[in-house]
Amino acid sequence: MNKHIDILEKTLGYKFKNEKLIIEALTHKSYKQPYDNERLEFLGDAVLDLIVGEYLFNKFPQSDEGKLSKIRASLVNESGFDMLARSINLGEYIYLSNAEENNGGRDKASLLSNAFEAIIGAIYLESGLKVVEKIAISIIEKNHKDISLDSLFKDFKTTLQELTQARFGQIPDYQVIASRGPDHKKEFEVAVIIEEKEYARAMGKSKKIAQQEAAKMAVEMLKEK
Amino acid sequence: MNKHIDILEKTLGYKFKNEKLIIEALTHKSYKQPYDNERLEFLGDAVLDLIVGEYLFNKFPQSDEGKLSKIRASLVNESGFDMLARSINLGEYIYLSNAEENNGGRDKASLLSNAFEAIIGAIYLESGLKVVEKIAISIIEKNHKDISLDSLFKDFKTTLQELTQARFGQIPDYQVIASRGPDHKKEFEVAVIIEEKEYARAMGKSKKIAQQEAAKMAVEMLKEK
Repeated sequence: MNKHIDILEKTLGYKFKNEKLIIEALTHKSYKQPYDNERLEFLGDAVLDLIVGEYLFNKFPQSDEGKLSKIRASLVNESGFDMLARSINLGEYIYLSNAEENNGGRDKASLLSNAFEAIIGAIYLESGLKVVEKIAISIIEKNHKDISLDSLFKDFKTTLQELTQARFGQIPDYQVIASRGPDHKKEFEVAVIIEEKEYARAMGKSKKIAQQEAAKMAVEMLKEK
Repeated sequence: MNKHIDILEKTLGYKFKNEKLIIEALTHKSYKQPYDNERLEFLGDAVLDLIVGEYLFNKFPQSDEGKLSKIRASLVNESGFDMLARSINLGEYIYLSNAEENNGGRDKASLLSNAFEAIIGAIYLESGLKVVEKIAISIIEKNHKDISLDSLFKDFKTTLQELTQARFGQIPDYQVIASRGPDHKKEFEVAVIIEEKEYARAMGKSKKIAQQEAAKMAVEMLKEK
């Protein structure tokens, strides 16, 4: 039984003028209606890219576009949107088939992330960029207390540590597998080990960057499980 | 000697309030100023993604998000923006180093595409989405007379044929290299041959799709030369 949409609207601080639009945004394609949330997701994805891009553009006036792209990529991705979706309990409102429900659909990162994008797309369509920007930034800022390159990098290692402590009672171990290239252009390959099993490997221009990338991949793998 | 910015503003149908902003948007990093157009390009890239995404969302109310993404990808890419940039003679206004100038910089697809994104980013920053949307859509519609999945697919083969006729006095030849997979899920690999030399190969769910993809790659290769 789905929670009533009113409650979601209160959480968002936004009341839809057209109720059909929020229902479409919440409808997973498994629900077999003449509509689903995929078109709104397509739109919302671009809306979020612009909102987050402009936010970072203004917040970091000294950062070059490479750095801005990196920070955005760390916020604008499935596991990032999954987190935002969970923070507004979006899973409780999604319409999906019984099969998908029994398959844990309400708790899947991909479903949650897509529904979040669709909700943003729906608000944009109805009320434009300025309105949806306020709502999205407020949700993002509540979930990322400190948006900076360092803190977002720290986030993945911290997130992974929290996950592994809760699930395995252990912290992850990072091992440098290899370093390649001349001194001024070295690349490091790092593996994340949890309970003596390798979960992910990544390359990076520093050990720190490679660790963060590997941590990110491990977080995504653990969340899928 | 750069053409005067007034003329570009006339072509765009937009007068910048802040002249510094259009100068920044036109400044390639080789010009060695305290500013260049890369941050504005970062912003403009997201602005164009949203503008084109919303345009297609409204234009094709029956198309699913896979189809919309495909059409957008065929418009929103370096060679697409290069074409738009050329249609407003953007190359004549770009500030760049002598070395880059002598290296044909004004005529490079990457420089032109980036400057185009930066100009869009600059107008967005100054006047918001609605204003820049009108300008961008007008340029896009002038350059793509018929925006549809078929016509955009046709575009690459037509473009390649025009290019090869002008350059080699020949039309390209498409050869099916292989087909793989069961009947209901076949994939085709197609090569483009020009003057008995293979230029590109691509896979696709139909011969037509693979040909178009290969034609696109060949067009990009020929334009780089």
